[in-house]
Amino acid sequence: MATLLHIDSSVLPVSDSASRAVADTFRTSWLQQHPDGFVIYRDLAANPASHISAAAQHAGYLSPEEHTVEQAAAFAERKELIEELEAADAVLIGAPMYNLSVPSTLKAWIDNVVLIGRTAMGAATLAGKPVIIIASRGGAYGPGTPREGYDYVQNYLRGVFEMMLGMEVEFIVPELTGAAVDPSMSELLPMYEESRYRAHDEAATRAQNLAAKLVEAV
Amino acid sequence: MATLLHIDSSVLPVSDSASRAVADTFRTSWLQQHPDGFVIYRDLAANPASHISAAAQHAGYLSPEEHTVEQAAAFAERKELIEELEAADAVLIGAPMYNLSVPSTLKAWIDNVVLIGRTAMGAATLAGKPVIIIASRGGAYGPGTPREGYDYVQNYLRGVFEMMLGMEVEFIVPELTGAAVDPSMSELLPMYEESRYRAHDEAATRAQNLAAKLVEAV
Repeated sequence: MATLLHIDSSVLPVSDSASRAVADTFRTSWLQQHPDGFVIYRDLAANPASHISAAAQHAGYLSPEEHTVEQAAAFAERKELIEELEAADAVLIGAPMYNLSVPSTLKAWIDNVVLIGRTAMGAATLAGKPVIIIASRGGAYGPGTPREGYDYVQNYLRGVFEMMLGMEVEFIVPELTGAAVDPSMSELLPMYEESRYRAHDEAATRAQNLAAKLVEAV
Repeated sequence: MATLLHIDSSVLPVSDSASRAVADTFRTSWLQQHPDGFVIYRDLAANPASHISAAAQHAGYLSPEEHTVEQAAAFAERKELIEELEAADAVLIGAPMYNLSVPSTLKAWIDNVVLIGRTAMGAATLAGKPVIIIASRGGAYGPGTPREGYDYVQNYLRGVFEMMLGMEVEFIVPELTGAAVDPSMSELLPMYEESRYRAHDEAATRAQNLAAKLVEAV
Protein backbone atom coordinates (compact mmCIF):
# COMPACT_ATOMS: atom_id res chain seq x y z
CA MET A 1 0.00 0.00 0.00
CA ALA A 2 1.52 3.30 -1.11
CA THR A 3 1.01 6.56 0.73
CA LEU A 4 0.75 9.99 -0.91
CA LEU A 5 1.22 13.04 1.28
CA HIS A 6 -0.84 15.85 -0.27
CA ILE A 7 -0.16 19.39 0.93
CA ASP A 8 -2.07 22.49 -0.18
CA SER A 9 -1.15 26.08 0.65
CA SER A 10 -3.38 28.34 -1.47
CA VAL A 11 -5.60 30.66 0.59
CA LEU A 12 -8.36 30.23 -2.02
CA PRO A 13 -10.92 27.44 -2.27
CA VAL A 14 -10.43 24.79 -4.98
CA SER A 15 -12.97 26.58 -7.24
CA ASP A 16 -10.65 29.62 -7.43
CA SER A 17 -7.24 27.98 -6.97
CA ALA A 18 -5.25 26.49 -9.84
CA SER A 19 -2.78 24.80 -7.48
CA ARG A 20 -5.58 23.10 -5.53
CA ALA A 21 -7.49 22.09 -8.68
CA VAL A 22 -4.45 20.61 -10.46
CA ALA A 23 -3.30 18.85 -7.27
CA ASP A 24 -6.78 17.33 -7.01
CA THR A 25 -6.49 16.01 -10.57
CA PHE A 26 -3.14 14.44 -9.66
CA ARG A 27 -4.52 12.87 -6.50
CA THR A 28 -7.61 11.48 -8.24
CA SER A 29 -5.54 9.96 -11.03
CA TRP A 30 -3.08 8.52 -8.52
CA LEU A 31 -5.88 6.88 -6.53
CA GLN A 32 -7.38 5.42 -9.71
CA GLN A 33 -4.09 3.67 -10.47
CA HIS A 34 -3.58 2.79 -6.86
CA PRO A 35 -6.93 1.63 -5.48
CA ASP A 36 -5.27 0.43 -2.28
CA GLY A 37 -3.34 3.69 -2.00
CA PHE A 38 -3.66 6.02 0.95
CA VAL A 39 -3.67 9.81 0.92
CA ILE A 40 -2.67 11.95 3.89
CA TYR A 41 -3.97 15.48 3.41
CA ARG A 42 -2.59 18.61 5.02
CA ASP A 43 -4.10 22.02 4.28
CA LEU A 44 -1.61 24.66 5.40
CA ALA A 45 -4.03 27.54 4.74
CA ALA A 46 -6.61 26.05 7.12
CA ASN A 47 -4.10 24.66 9.63
CA PRO A 48 -0.71 26.35 9.29
CA ALA A 49 2.38 24.88 10.90
CA SER A 50 3.93 27.14 13.52
CA HIS A 51 6.66 29.53 12.50
CA ILE A 52 9.98 28.03 13.56
CA SER A 53 11.05 29.30 17.01
CA ALA A 54 14.36 29.42 18.83
CA ALA A 55 13.17 26.54 21.03
CA ALA A 56 12.13 24.41 18.03
CA GLN A 57 15.39 25.18 16.27
CA HIS A 58 17.63 24.35 19.24
CA ALA A 59 15.61 21.23 20.06
CA GLY A 60 16.44 19.84 16.62
CA TYR A 61 20.11 19.58 17.52
CA LEU A 62 19.64 17.95 20.95
CA SER A 63 18.58 14.45 21.90
CA PRO A 64 15.07 14.25 23.42
CA GLU A 65 16.48 13.63 26.94
CA GLU A 66 18.23 16.97 26.77
CA HIS A 67 15.08 18.95 25.85
CA THR A 68 13.67 21.54 28.23
CA VAL A 69 9.89 21.48 28.64
CA GLU A 70 9.60 24.36 26.13
CA GLN A 71 11.88 22.61 23.63
CA ALA A 72 9.99 19.32 23.96
CA ALA A 73 6.69 21.06 23.23
CA ALA A 74 8.13 22.98 20.27
CA PHE A 75 9.80 19.88 18.85
CA ALA A 76 6.67 17.73 19.06
CA GLU A 77 5.19 19.58 16.08
CA ARG A 78 8.38 19.33 14.01
CA LYS A 79 8.59 15.61 14.76
CA GLU A 80 5.01 15.01 13.64
CA LEU A 81 5.56 16.90 10.37
CA ILE A 82 8.88 15.15 9.71
CA GLU A 83 7.55 11.65 10.45
CA GLU A 84 4.55 12.25 8.19
CA LEU A 85 6.91 13.25 5.37
CA GLU A 86 9.32 10.36 6.00
CA ALA A 87 6.45 7.85 5.98
CA ALA A 88 5.09 8.99 2.60
CA ASP A 89 6.06 7.20 -0.61
CA ALA A 90 5.46 10.34 -2.63
CA VAL A 91 4.65 13.96 -1.91
CA LEU A 92 2.32 16.32 -3.77
CA ILE A 93 2.52 20.04 -2.98
CA GLY A 94 0.31 22.89 -4.16
CA ALA A 95 2.63 25.91 -4.15
CA PRO A 96 1.01 29.02 -5.65
CA MET A 97 3.25 32.04 -6.21
CA TYR A 98 2.52 34.88 -3.76
CA ASN A 99 4.63 37.98 -4.35
CA LEU A 100 7.23 36.06 -6.37
CA SER A 101 7.75 33.24 -3.84
CA VAL A 102 5.87 30.56 -1.88
CA PRO A 103 3.09 31.31 0.65
CA SER A 104 4.40 32.05 4.17
CA THR A 105 2.58 28.94 5.43
CA LEU A 106 4.57 26.72 3.06
CA LYS A 107 7.82 28.39 4.17
CA ALA A 108 6.87 27.73 7.82
CA TRP A 109 6.28 24.04 6.98
CA ILE A 110 9.66 23.87 5.19
CA ASP A 111 11.44 25.42 8.19
CA ASN A 112 9.91 22.71 10.38
CA VAL A 113 10.78 19.69 8.21
CA VAL A 114 14.30 20.66 7.13
CA LEU A 115 16.45 19.33 9.97
CA ILE A 116 20.21 19.13 9.47
CA GLY A 117 21.45 15.68 10.46
CA ARG A 118 18.08 14.04 9.86
CA THR A 119 16.18 15.10 6.73
CA ALA A 120 18.91 17.42 5.39
CA MET A 121 22.49 16.29 5.01
CA GLY A 122 23.54 13.52 7.44
CA ALA A 123 20.91 10.78 7.53
CA ALA A 124 19.02 12.30 4.59
CA THR A 125 15.89 10.32 5.43
CA LEU A 126 14.00 11.71 2.41
CA ALA A 127 16.62 11.02 -0.27
CA GLY A 128 15.17 9.74 -3.53
CA LYS A 129 11.55 10.33 -2.54
CA PRO A 130 9.49 11.88 -5.37
CA VAL A 131 7.87 15.26 -4.82
CA ILE A 132 5.51 16.77 -7.39
CA ILE A 133 4.97 20.50 -7.02
CA ILE A 134 2.05 22.38 -8.58
CA ALA A 135 3.72 25.78 -8.96
CA SER A 136 0.84 27.92 -10.19
CA ARG A 137 1.31 31.62 -10.84
CA GLY A 138 -0.83 34.58 -11.82
CA GLY A 139 1.46 35.83 -14.57
CA ALA A 140 4.02 34.37 -16.96
CA TYR A 141 7.70 34.12 -15.96
CA GLY A 142 9.19 32.02 -18.76
CA PRO A 143 11.97 33.00 -21.20
CA GLY A 144 11.17 36.17 -23.13
CA THR A 145 8.45 37.42 -20.78
CA PRO A 146 8.86 40.79 -18.97
CA ARG A 147 9.06 38.93 -15.64
CA GLU A 148 11.65 36.38 -16.72
CA GLY A 149 14.00 35.79 -13.80
CA TYR A 150 11.53 36.90 -11.13
CA ASP A 151 10.18 33.45 -10.26
CA TYR A 152 11.47 32.49 -6.80
CA VAL A 153 9.21 29.46 -6.46
CA GLN A 154 10.65 26.80 -8.75
CA ASN A 155 14.34 27.58 -8.34
CA TYR A 156 13.90 28.04 -4.60
CA LEU A 157 11.96 24.82 -4.07
CA ARG A 158 14.49 22.92 -6.20
CA GLY A 159 17.18 24.24 -3.84
CA VAL A 160 15.30 22.98 -0.78
CA PHE A 161 13.91 19.67 -1.99
CA GLU A 162 16.71 18.63 -4.35
CA MET A 163 19.91 20.19 -2.98
CA MET A 164 19.08 20.12 0.75
CA LEU A 165 16.79 17.07 1.04
CA GLY A 166 17.94 14.96 -1.95
CA MET A 167 14.38 14.40 -3.15
CA GLU A 168 13.34 13.95 -6.80
CA VAL A 169 11.48 17.08 -7.81
CA GLU A 170 9.01 17.53 -10.67
CA PHE A 171 7.03 20.68 -11.40
CA ILE A 172 3.68 21.27 -13.07
CA VAL A 173 3.17 24.98 -13.77
CA PRO A 174 -0.30 26.36 -14.56
CA GLU A 175 0.36 30.02 -15.33
CA LEU A 176 -1.40 33.28 -16.22
CA THR A 177 -4.13 32.32 -13.76
CA GLY A 178 -4.67 36.04 -13.17
CA ALA A 179 -6.34 36.19 -16.60
CA ALA A 180 -9.35 34.39 -15.12
CA VAL A 181 -10.06 37.28 -12.72
CA ASP A 182 -8.22 40.38 -13.97
CA PRO A 183 -9.95 42.20 -16.88
CA SER A 184 -6.65 43.87 -17.86
CA MET A 185 -5.28 40.38 -18.66
CA SER A 186 -8.27 39.33 -20.79
CA GLU A 187 -6.26 39.00 -23.99
CA LEU A 188 -4.16 36.36 -22.24
CA LEU A 189 -7.21 34.19 -21.53
CA PRO A 190 -6.54 31.73 -24.38
CA MET A 191 -2.95 31.21 -23.15
CA TYR A 192 -4.22 30.70 -19.61
CA GLU A 193 -6.79 28.16 -20.80
CA GLU A 194 -4.11 26.28 -22.71
CA SER A 195 -1.78 26.31 -19.70
CA ARG A 196 -4.58 25.10 -17.45
CA TYR A 197 -5.52 22.28 -19.81
CA ARG A 198 -1.89 21.18 -20.11
CA ALA A 199 -1.37 21.28 -16.34
CA HIS A 200 -4.36 19.03 -15.65
CA ASP A 201 -3.29 16.69 -18.45
CA GLU A 202 0.27 16.49 -17.08
CA ALA A 203 -1.03 15.93 -13.56
CA ALA A 204 -3.15 12.97 -14.67
CA THR A 205 -0.31 11.45 -16.72
CA ARG A 206 2.41 11.93 -14.14
CA ALA A 207 0.22 10.49 -11.41
CA GLN A 208 -0.24 7.36 -13.54
CA ASN A 209 3.50 7.10 -14.18
CA LEU A 210 4.33 7.61 -10.52
CA ALA A 211 1.77 5.03 -9.43
CA ALA A 212 3.26 2.52 -11.90
CA LYS A 213 6.76 3.26 -10.60
CA LEU A 214 5.70 2.80 -6.98
CA VAL A 215 3.97 -0.50 -7.80
CA GLU A 216 7.15 -1.75 -9.52
CA ALA A 217 9.22 -0.71 -6.52
CA VAL A 218 7.07 -2.74 -4.08
CA MET B 1 12.06 64.64 12.27
CA ALA B 2 12.88 61.50 10.32
CA THR B 3 11.37 58.10 11.08
CA LEU B 4 13.19 54.79 10.72
CA LEU B 5 11.07 51.63 10.65
CA HIS B 6 13.23 48.82 12.08
CA ILE B 7 12.06 45.26 11.52
CA ASP B 8 13.75 42.13 12.92
CA SER B 9 12.87 38.56 12.03
CA SER B 10 15.57 36.33 13.53
CA VAL B 11 14.27 33.81 16.06
CA LEU B 12 17.48 34.25 18.08
CA PRO B 13 18.25 36.95 20.65
CA VAL B 14 20.62 39.75 19.64
CA SER B 15 23.51 37.99 21.42
CA ASP B 16 23.24 35.07 18.96
CA SER B 17 21.87 36.83 15.88
CA ALA B 18 24.06 38.58 13.32
CA SER B 19 21.08 40.22 11.62
CA ARG B 20 19.84 41.69 14.92
CA ALA B 21 23.31 42.79 16.02
CA VAL B 22 24.20 44.51 12.73
CA ALA B 23 20.75 46.13 12.51
CA ASP B 24 21.31 47.47 16.03
CA THR B 25 24.62 49.00 14.93
CA PHE B 26 22.82 50.67 12.02
CA ARG B 27 20.07 51.99 14.23
CA THR B 28 22.48 53.33 16.86
CA SER B 29 24.56 55.11 14.25
CA TRP B 30 21.45 56.52 12.58
CA LEU B 31 20.17 57.90 15.89
CA GLN B 32 23.57 59.48 16.61
CA GLN B 33 23.37 61.40 13.35
CA HIS B 34 19.72 62.11 13.81
CA PRO B 35 19.18 63.03 17.47
CA ASP B 36 15.62 64.11 16.75
CA GLY B 37 15.00 60.92 14.77
CA PHE B 38 12.31 58.45 15.68
CA VAL B 39 12.52 54.65 15.47
CA ILE B 40 9.50 52.39 15.13
CA TYR B 41 10.46 48.85 16.05
CA ARG B 42 8.69 45.68 14.94
CA ASP B 43 9.94 42.27 16.03
CA LEU B 44 8.32 39.68 13.76
CA ALA B 45 9.70 36.75 15.76
CA ALA B 46 8.00 37.97 18.94
CA ASN B 47 4.87 39.33 17.23
CA PRO B 48 4.42 37.83 13.78
CA ALA B 49 2.02 39.33 11.28
CA SER B 50 -0.81 37.00 10.30
CA HIS B 51 -0.42 34.79 7.27
CA ILE B 52 -2.35 36.37 4.43
CA SER B 53 -5.89 34.95 4.18
CA ALA B 54 -8.50 34.88 1.43
CA ALA B 55 -10.45 37.57 3.30
CA ALA B 56 -7.39 39.82 3.68
CA GLN B 57 -6.49 39.30 0.03
CA HIS B 58 -9.96 40.06 -1.33
CA ALA B 59 -10.36 43.03 1.00
CA GLY B 60 -7.31 44.63 -0.59
CA TYR B 61 -9.14 45.02 -3.89
CA LEU B 62 -12.38 46.43 -2.48
CA SER B 63 -13.20 49.83 -1.02
CA PRO B 64 -13.78 49.79 2.77
CA GLU B 65 -17.57 50.27 2.33
CA GLU B 66 -17.70 47.01 0.40
CA HIS B 67 -15.92 44.97 3.10
CA THR B 68 -17.74 42.19 4.90
CA VAL B 69 -17.18 42.04 8.65
CA GLU B 70 -14.58 39.30 8.15
CA GLN B 71 -12.80 41.30 5.41
CA ALA B 72 -12.79 44.48 7.52
CA ALA B 73 -11.16 42.63 10.41
CA ALA B 74 -8.60 40.95 8.18
CA PHE B 75 -7.79 44.19 6.38
CA ALA B 76 -7.28 46.20 9.59
CA GLU B 77 -3.95 44.44 10.16
CA ARG B 78 -2.77 44.96 6.58
CA LYS B 79 -3.71 48.62 6.78
CA GLU B 80 -1.74 49.13 9.99
CA LEU B 81 1.37 47.46 8.53
CA ILE B 82 1.10 49.38 5.24
CA GLU B 83 0.55 52.77 6.92
CA GLU B 84 3.53 52.19 9.22
CA LEU B 85 5.69 51.44 6.18
CA GLU B 86 4.34 54.39 4.17
CA ALA B 87 4.98 56.77 7.08
CA ALA B 88 8.65 55.77 7.48
CA ASP B 89 11.42 57.79 5.83
CA ALA B 90 13.66 54.75 5.73
CA VAL B 91 13.32 51.04 6.47
CA LEU B 92 15.82 48.70 8.12
CA ILE B 93 15.17 44.95 7.91
CA GLY B 94 17.00 42.08 9.58
CA ALA B 95 16.54 39.17 7.18
CA PRO B 96 18.54 36.09 8.20
CA MET B 97 18.64 33.21 5.71
CA TYR B 98 16.58 30.21 6.88
CA ASN B 99 16.74 27.25 4.51
CA LEU B 100 17.95 29.38 1.60
CA SER B 101 15.25 32.07 1.90
CA VAL B 102 13.71 34.54 4.35
CA PRO B 103 12.00 33.53 7.64
CA SER B 104 8.32 32.64 7.22
CA THR B 105 7.43 35.59 9.47
CA LEU B 106 9.11 38.03 7.08
CA LYS B 107 7.27 36.46 4.12
CA ALA B 108 3.97 36.86 6.00
CA TRP B 109 4.77 40.55 6.56
CA ILE B 110 5.63 40.98 2.86
CA ASP B 111 2.34 39.35 1.80
CA ASN B 112 0.50 41.86 4.00
CA VAL B 113 2.25 45.03 2.78
CA VAL B 114 2.42 44.28 -0.95
CA LEU B 115 -0.90 45.53 -2.23
CA ILE B 116 -1.41 45.92 -5.98
CA GLY B 117 -2.82 49.36 -6.74
CA ARG B 118 -1.46 50.90 -3.54
CA THR B 119 2.10 49.92 -2.56
CA ALA B 120 2.79 47.81 -5.66
CA MET B 121 2.20 49.14 -9.16
CA GLY B 122 -0.51 51.78 -9.42
CA ALA B 123 -0.06 54.39 -6.69
CA ALA B 124 3.34 52.96 -5.68
CA THR B 125 3.22 54.75 -2.33
CA LEU B 126 6.67 53.46 -1.35
CA ALA B 127 8.57 54.41 -4.53
CA GLY B 128 12.05 55.79 -3.87
CA LYS B 129 12.02 55.00 -0.14
CA PRO B 130 15.35 53.54 1.04
CA VAL B 131 15.38 50.04 2.55
CA ILE B 132 18.53 48.59 4.11
CA ILE B 133 18.47 44.83 4.50
CA ILE B 134 20.80 42.91 6.82
CA ALA B 135 20.89 39.62 4.92
CA SER B 136 22.90 37.42 7.28
CA ARG B 137 23.59 33.79 6.42
CA GLY B 138 25.20 30.80 8.08
CA GLY B 139 27.34 29.83 5.11
CA ALA B 140 28.91 31.54 2.11
CA TYR B 141 27.01 31.89 -1.16
CA GLY B 142 29.24 34.20 -3.19
CA PRO B 143 30.91 33.51 -6.55
CA GLY B 144 33.12 30.41 -6.47
CA THR B 145 31.60 28.92 -3.30
CA PRO B 146 29.91 25.47 -3.44
CA ARG B 147 26.56 27.12 -2.68
CA GLU B 148 26.83 29.85 -5.31
CA GLY B 149 23.37 30.39 -6.80
CA TYR B 150 21.48 28.98 -3.80
CA ASP B 151 20.83 32.32 -2.08
CA TYR B 152 17.13 33.15 -2.40
CA VAL B 153 17.24 36.05 0.04
CA GLN B 154 18.96 38.90 -1.80
CA ASN B 155 17.67 38.25 -5.30
CA TYR B 156 14.18 37.55 -3.94
CA LEU B 157 14.03 40.66 -1.76
CA ARG B 158 15.35 42.78 -4.63
CA GLY B 159 12.45 41.45 -6.70
CA VAL B 160 9.92 42.45 -4.05
CA PHE B 161 11.31 45.77 -2.82
CA GLU B 162 12.82 47.06 -6.06
CA MET B 163 10.75 45.57 -8.90
CA MET B 164 7.36 45.38 -7.15
CA LEU B 165 7.53 48.30 -4.70
CA GLY B 166 10.02 50.61 -6.44
CA MET B 167 12.07 51.10 -3.27
CA GLU B 168 15.83 51.72 -3.16
CA VAL B 169 17.43 48.58 -1.80
CA GLU B 170 20.83 48.18 -0.15
CA PHE B 171 22.19 44.99 1.39
CA ILE B 172 24.67 44.35 4.18
CA VAL B 173 25.65 40.68 4.28
CA PRO B 174 27.36 39.19 7.35
CA GLU B 175 28.09 35.62 6.31
CA LEU B 176 29.54 32.35 7.59
CA THR B 177 27.80 33.03 10.91
CA GLY B 178 27.56 29.26 11.37
CA ALA B 179 31.30 29.25 12.11
CA ALA B 180 30.54 30.82 15.49
CA VAL B 181 28.55 27.77 16.62
CA ASP B 182 29.42 24.83 14.33
CA PRO B 183 32.75 23.10 15.19
CA SER B 184 32.93 21.64 11.64
CA MET B 185 33.19 25.21 10.33
CA SER B 186 35.97 26.25 12.73
CA GLU B 187 38.55 26.86 10.00
CA LEU B 188 36.19 29.48 8.55
CA LEU B 189 36.18 31.47 11.81
CA PRO B 190 38.66 34.12 10.59
CA MET B 191 36.55 34.72 7.47
CA TYR B 192 33.41 34.98 9.61
CA GLU B 193 35.11 37.47 11.94
CA GLU B 194 36.18 39.58 8.98
CA SER B 195 32.69 39.47 7.48
CA ARG B 196 31.18 40.42 10.83
CA TYR B 197 33.57 43.32 11.30
CA ARG B 198 32.91 44.59 7.79
CA ALA B 199 29.12 44.31 8.23
CA HIS B 200 29.12 46.39 11.43
CA ASP B 201 31.44 48.91 9.82
CA GLU B 202 29.21 49.18 6.74
CA ALA B 203 26.11 49.49 8.91
CA ALA B 204 27.60 52.42 10.84
CA THR B 205 28.78 54.18 7.67
CA ARG B 206 25.63 53.67 5.66
CA ALA B 207 23.48 54.85 8.55
CA GLN B 208 25.51 58.07 8.65
CA ASN B 209 25.16 58.55 4.90
CA LEU B 210 21.45 57.86 4.99
CA ALA B 211 20.92 60.25 7.87
CA ALA B 212 22.83 62.97 5.96
CA LYS B 213 20.72 62.30 2.85
CA LEU B 214 17.45 62.50 4.82
CA VAL B 215 18.55 65.76 6.48
CA GLU B 216 19.34 67.27 3.05
CA ALA B 217 15.97 66.16 1.76
CA VAL B 218 14.10 67.93 4.56
